Amino acid sequence: MKARITVYPRPEVLDPQGKAVHQALSRVGFEPVSAVRVGKSFDIELDVRTKPQAMKLLEEMCQKLLANRVMEVYEIEILGKAKAGKSGQ
Amino acid sequence: MKARITVYPRPEVLDPQGKAVHQALSRVGFEPVSAVRVGKSFDIELDVRTKPQAMKLLEEMCQKLLANRVMEVYEIEILGKAKAGKSGQ
Repeated sequence: MKARITVYPRPEVLDPQGKAVHQALSRVGFEPVSAVRVGKSFDIELDVRTKPQAMKLLEEMCQKLLANRVMEVYEIEILGKAKAGKSGQ
Repeated sequence: MKARITVYPRPEVLDPQGKAVHQALSRVGFEPVSAVRVGKSFDIELDVRTKPQAMKLLEEMCQKLLANRVMEVYEIEILGKAKAGKSGQ
């Protein structure tokens, strides 16, 4: 089973990396951008049978290792066969 | 309009950060994990009206700034009101 965990700084926490990317985008000419936040993404391959088992494990991983819950929030997504959205090759 | 861009190293490119996270997870006792890859995630707020306009801009951002297309692949997702999956607070 494949899952994706996304970790972002909490909305109330300053995100200097996001600010830098925002400024860089403006400099290159992307004016319609009004805000950018930068986070981490983990694609995890799990050898478990059921979705609830996977969710339990992934939740534990976030709390123990992948996210700092004081500063960050996380999202867990179980990935299907094909991911929605456009993919650039 | 809100969008998310996810940038990962190409599957054929070594991902030492992913390997380190995989080893750390194994050490903490998460044996069912068989592979981890680590990428970057950008949440971008855009002042444009239509989805095609947004997609065009986001595609350009990836190619000009956010992704290194020799080493990385990217995915673009227009985010709806609520994101699917579980969110940890």
